Amino acid sequence: MGTAGANGAMSDDELDLLHRYWSAANYLTVAQIYLQDNALLREPLRPEHIKPRLLGHWGTGPGLSLIYAHLNRLIRNTSAEVLFIAGPGHGGPSVVANVYLEGTYSEVYPDVSRDAAGMHRLARQFSTPGGVGSHVGPATPGSIHEGGELGYSLMHATGAVMDNPGLIAACVVGDGEAETGPLAASWTAPFFLNPVRDGAVLPILHLNGAKISGPTVLGRRSDEDVEALLHANGWEPVTVSGDQPGKVHRALSAALDNAYATIRDIQRDARDAGSGDTGTGSNRTRNRTTAARWPAIILRTPKGWTGPETVDGSPVEGTFRAHQVPLSGVKDDPEHLALLEQWMRSYQPESLFDDGGRLLPELAALAPEGRLRMGAAPWANGQPSVPLEIPDLVQYAVDPGRPGSTSVETTKPLGELFRDLYTGTEDNPRFRLFCPDETNSNRLGAVFEATDRCLLLPGHDGDDHVSADGRVMEVLSEHLCQGWLEGYLLTGRHGFFASYEAFAMVSASMTVQHAKWLQHARELAWRSPVPSLNILLTSTCWRNDHNGFSHQGPGLIDTVLSLSGEVTRIYLPPDTNTLLAAAEHALRSKDYVNLVVVDKQSHPQYLTLAEARAHAEAGASRWEWAGNENGSSAEPDIILACAGDIPTEEALAAAWLLQRHVPDATVRVVNVMDAMVLPPREVHPHGLDDGTFTSLFTDTGEVVVAWHGYARSFHQLLHGRPNPERFHVRGYSQQGTTTTPFDMVVLNRMSRYHLALEALSRMPRQFDGAQALADHCNQLLDAHAEYIREHFEDLPEIREWVWSPPGS
Amino acid sequence: MGTAGANGAMSDDELDLLHRYWSAANYLTVAQIYLQDNALLREPLRPEHIKPRLLGHWGTGPGLSLIYAHLNRLIRNTSAEVLFIAGPGHGGPSVVANVYLEGTYSEVYPDVSRDAAGMHRLARQFSTPGGVGSHVGPATPGSIHEGGELGYSLMHATGAVMDNPGLIAACVVGDGEAETGPLAASWTAPFFLNPVRDGAVLPILHLNGAKISGPTVLGRRSDEDVEALLHANGWEPVTVSGDQPGKVHRALSAALDNAYATIRDIQRDARDAGSGDTGTGSNRTRNRTTAARWPAIILRTPKGWTGPETVDGSPVEGTFRAHQVPLSGVKDDPEHLALLEQWMRSYQPESLFDDGGRLLPELAALAPEGRLRMGAAPWANGQPSVPLEIPDLVQYAVDPGRPGSTSVETTKPLGELFRDLYTGTEDNPRFRLFCPDETNSNRLGAVFEATDRCLLLPGHDGDDHVSADGRVMEVLSEHLCQGWLEGYLLTGRHGFFASYEAFAMVSASMTVQHAKWLQHARELAWRSPVPSLNILLTSTCWRNDHNGFSHQGPGLIDTVLSLSGEVTRIYLPPDTNTLLAAAEHALRSKDYVNLVVVDKQSHPQYLTLAEARAHAEAGASRWEWAGNENGSSAEPDIILACAGDIPTEEALAAAWLLQRHVPDATVRVVNVMDAMVLPPREVHPHGLDDGTFTSLFTDTGEVVVAWHGYARSFHQLLHGRPNPERFHVRGYSQQGTTTTPFDMVVLNRMSRYHLALEALSRMPRQFDGAQALADHCNQLLDAHAEYIREHFEDLPEIREWVWSPPGS
Repeated sequence: MGTAGANGAMSDDELDLLHRYWSAANYLTVAQIYLQDNALLREPLRPEHIKPRLLGHWGTGPGLSLIYAHLNRLIRNTSAEVLFIAGPGHGGPSVVANVYLEGTYSEVYPDVSRDAAGMHRLARQFSTPGGVGSHVGPATPGSIHEGGELGYSLMHATGAVMDNPGLIAACVVGDGEAETGPLAASWTAPFFLNPVRDGAVLPILHLNGAKISGPTVLGRRSDEDVEALLHANGWEPVTVSGDQPGKVHRALSAALDNAYATIRDIQRDARDAGSGDTGTGSNRTRNRTTAARWPAIILRTPKGWTGPETVDGSPVEGTFRAHQVPLSGVKDDPEHLALLEQWMRSYQPESLFDDGGRLLPELAALAPEGRLRMGAAPWANGQPSVPLEIPDLVQYAVDPGRPGSTSVETTKPLGELFRDLYTGTEDNPRFRLFCPDETNSNRLGAVFEATDRCLLLPGHDGDDHVSADGRVMEVLSEHLCQGWLEGYLLTGRHGFFASYEAFAMVSASMTVQHAKWLQHARELAWRSPVPSLNILLTSTCWRNDHNGFSHQGPGLIDTVLSLSGEVTRIYLPPDTNTLLAAAEHALRSKDYVNLVVVDKQSHPQYLTLAEARAHAEAGASRWEWAGNENGSSAEPDIILACAGDIPTEEALAAAWLLQRHVPDATVRVVNVMDAMVLPPREVHPHGLDDGTFTSLFTDTGEVVVAWHGYARSFHQLLHGRPNPERFHVRGYSQQGTTTTPFDMVVLNRMSRYHLALEALSRMPRQFDGAQALADHCNQLLDAHAEYIREHFEDLPEIREWVWSPPGS
Repeated sequence: MGTAGANGAMSDDELDLLHRYWSAANYLTVAQIYLQDNALLREPLRPEHIKPRLLGHWGTGPGLSLIYAHLNRLIRNTSAEVLFIAGPGHGGPSVVANVYLEGTYSEVYPDVSRDAAGMHRLARQFSTPGGVGSHVGPATPGSIHEGGELGYSLMHATGAVMDNPGLIAACVVGDGEAETGPLAASWTAPFFLNPVRDGAVLPILHLNGAKISGPTVLGRRSDEDVEALLHANGWEPVTVSGDQPGKVHRALSAALDNAYATIRDIQRDARDAGSGDTGTGSNRTRNRTTAARWPAIILRTPKGWTGPETVDGSPVEGTFRAHQVPLSGVKDDPEHLALLEQWMRSYQPESLFDDGGRLLPELAALAPEGRLRMGAAPWANGQPSVPLEIPDLVQYAVDPGRPGSTSVETTKPLGELFRDLYTGTEDNPRFRLFCPDETNSNRLGAVFEATDRCLLLPGHDGDDHVSADGRVMEVLSEHLCQGWLEGYLLTGRHGFFASYEAFAMVSASMTVQHAKWLQHARELAWRSPVPSLNILLTSTCWRNDHNGFSHQGPGLIDTVLSLSGEVTRIYLPPDTNTLLAAAEHALRSKDYVNLVVVDKQSHPQYLTLAEARAHAEAGASRWEWAGNENGSSAEPDIILACAGDIPTEEALAAAWLLQRHVPDATVRVVNVMDAMVLPPREVHPHGLDDGTFTSLFTDTGEVVVAWHGYARSFHQLLHGRPNPERFHVRGYSQQGTTTTPFDMVVLNRMSRYHLALEALSRMPRQFDGAQALADHCNQLLDAHAEYIREHFEDLPEIREWVWSPPGS
């Protein structure tokens, strides 16, 4: 496997120093979990030194610290740029201990200084209200990964190294996390990483054998079986195993040296050979390079290694009992207190720290320096990212002509913008599209004029735009698409995740966790803002008439609605130009989750680019041309509000029906493109001020709403607005099957006819023509029902009920 | 591998017959996708025979049909009970074709008869409005699996065979689905299936090489690599590969014969040896049986096999272009029409069906008979399930004494009920608990008095209740926990999935899809109702003060709120006895998703079991003892409503503060245990009638609400109720960190002091004592802020702010 280690085997002295460094990290881990005072243990341990609430996870800590210390050695020897990703993120105190030992922590948090006072604070702040939590997270320097919800470490590592040729992401995967679906799918990384242009992921699968209260699957399988599993996934694993520190130190350092050498060999060979591809578009020759077998390390050491072997007669070290706090009730139990003191003194703190609490110089020298320290990794801490230069949207814009008279596949021009973002960043690649095999289906296929789908597996003749050089990331996993993108964004690059709307729920929990990350990270001045997570929901519920009920679900809107308004945005562009304006804004923004919901099919176009920009800026506007107020200052008889492309189409048609049949009634159409203008400003910063809200919706006028999402979820947007009960909302109400597009809006009672009937029923008086229109609507709905029934036996044209533009 | 096939190799005659049967299935698949008339092709194909909208997935069909036909042979030869799970569920028409050919379809849907008229209808109904969708789903006889959202086939198969020793679940996994996280994690099934008491899963990984528009990872890997991957996951795979039907038929039939023989060998050996465990509780000896290496088949055949090889100069068969409809525009394109006719005639329909459209007898004889037909599998079609006998709850009930004076870990008695459900069903095992390694953490550990955690891997001495005989399913994957349970339920058994509240979002999309399945399945009279999916959310946002922000998220409530009220229930029991009542109801119910949200920590208890049952029945009740109306018929000055355990505790404390400090004001406390009583009945069948709603909340009185979930999501429950703007809701508002439990309610402004202040501000007049109470609340909140600040340096007791029961 590769060439020899960069600096040969460790000397006994080096081993001894490294072991003491590891001891210091373990000591500080225990101190954080247990101590509120006497952190240096310079006096006998007494109950008052013990925290009143013992929280935290010890079990994974020694393994994380061991790996961190050995990576320090590797970095020092090679000057490699390494990102540390702690899959077992609940091992927070050990990662903090290491970042503290290397000096980064005190630079970021000067109060936690590299002396006795700082060490006191380090211990005190952990698991203390307002202090430091037990998981690695935004507050941990050097981290791009929150360790609370397990499963995403390896995909974050993979995304981080894309277009990042110098970076090595060392990713510790716990054997608990390895049982999750998202992690299990992540092992395919080698088939999506190109050694020419991407960096390397070095997985370190840490098997300590147990979770909270039971064994792990991989922890109980043999070395051969676990090696076979990683090998079968395309890696070249080596196992380091043992419970004798000296032997493990030697074996792990050799394994890391070898892994590093192999990584560099792979990269050198690939880069010397070149990418094999320089052309673009159809002249491009496909690079059929297949995946490198990247090194991986399996580390099998006892859970809670160096901790108490037995407590109260039960084995602890090496078992699930070491998972959290191995010694409980220490404040009140003298025996446990003594055991804790014995445990802590086993690290010989006096041989690690001087009287002032400073790490001894010969140990401090083991950490890398400056930006090479993993806690100081610029990629992790949000070094200012290079903005995208976004081409003038005018070249993608659609000329709608008379509103509604032109139809366009709404997402297609966005694909052209994405294409040009790929080509425009060739010198400094920093944009990617991630999509579960649906790029073409979602009408974003123009990107393939600029690049290919990425796959480092043998090509076939029939392949369409698939190559090792491709940078469109398609894999049939929403988890991987989103997770790779998150890793890419958190290291300062830009992108979009495009998903069928319903299946974006697959990774909904990731969206929640990412929003939490951003909410927390924004509060940390030392973290630079990162490009936003942009989620494009296409193939929406309303136009999955062909795929049926399982493909119909606007639930991600609900999920995002409840998150913090500081970090979430929800856009429902009604047409192409508004979509372009929203996408431009999303790509320029930082620290948000931008949800953009729009269908991919051919839909009527309404606004010019200039109008679209103004509409996007306002978030919601009166569409004068669609109503008949003609500048009247009187309140309209009915307001039709709409949000989303299909709801807009139906609401416009309803407005047209009303004006045609009930000309005396005044109708206003309000289009809402930014859902978060609706709630009051204290709920969301986009919330309209009272005056603007009233200028759109009046204070007391009846409003019929056509809403893209679940009908009732809309009401949570309105609380705090005047007389919210006057809003009558139609939206997706969990009705659907394989049917026609128009039947979808009928089944969910959001059709133009339903909207017109609702509007008629809400008008202040019975206008001339109202009954005739009601009869007309009911007749058409009856005819539709008949049509659907008859359809089965005598199939007429499916799009018979296509919208007629207002004013035609 | 195992003994020889049950019936030896296929004769040439048998091969020819089987091939023709497969041809018939392929023919009917194409007919469904394309034809609205002339289904038997007894006249030349003309444009008017073609459907106006061509939908459906051809690519996976031939593979599914091949496997189905060969499984038919196996069943006929062995009388094995086989469940067919079509992972590539978008291959709906081919599964329908097979269920039709075997006769089940016509029994379930008599209109689709086994003759020319039925075949006409079979073709017409597919992808037609009101007809049959393109995915396998509830309407497909024999299916427990919807093929729309990919990833769950193998976990459904695994759950189906648990406690089902006679069953073989033959699970086709597509190479697209194999890229998903949930599927990737599912390969660990052998470590959770006990050959003594469980049935067998036979995975058939079908590699046709492509997805919608690109290659698959596994499709491009070598046979050796794919075999190594399955082998490394604990299976004994064999590859069947080719594009020559004769050879593939022979190889596949031999592979299935061998796999079947191996399965029976494994089962016989294991069952002859016995489980090695008959005791219970601490006397139980742990059965250390390790996993069998169950057979698996890798089938590599061309995508869209037997379809057009090339269309318009592009290769189709064997490429992504065969994924959906290989020939487009057939109605208008004479060349494509001719190609379609040629393709369909290649199956020689006249040699398959007689003039009346009936499958020729020698082919019909190839299907199994009666209940052994996979479409008629009783386990799949909801054979009436054996109800659980639920012990009298009185033995688990808590005596609360004076309300609020007793504290209990709320979920602990539920664990005792679960324990007794395990022991009470030993003769006919049909209850299991599924939980990601948190059974003890969630205080449900009493189950381990009855059984163990299940794991078929080597045991260690330090293990706590882990054995091969264990039937508590712990794996660190919410996907697997929920998916196994879904498979268990859909085959008629009972269970609970217990999850940390925040991480239930990981499998939220599965919850959506399962609710969709139930909603559809309920409409099908031939499907028996199935036990409900019971999801217990513990370790809730309010009491993840120790784990921090990532562990705090009540989002699954939002997700379930938007689903159909026909199939969803949301219970927020305030204490143990109400939890027991809710759990009993959930376990007895059918066809629901029951979300039960309750924290696991020690909390005050309020209601006796009788009161709890009445409260659960009502869904929401006035708690007279907590207010001071004393039977007055006047409207109270303020109503405090609460839903959820922590909100109840805070609201009760606020009520107590108000009564103590502002005795002249009348206060009503309403506890809502069933969230779905709040919306009008047209939204949810539990919706209170207007009179009852008014009797609780009046029509105009101000209501201060303490709500477990996201604060604003509550408002969607209220739309349609009188004057919804008078409800002032406090709930989780995405604020949290590692802190104290009380600080969590302060951060989210739901503390007793916030509630009291809000109540004071909403009262009809300024009562005596109001200002003093407001000052008191503000002082205490200031003191709390101080306390949190000080906490850091001088840690006082964390639970200083514990609730004082009202009236104390």
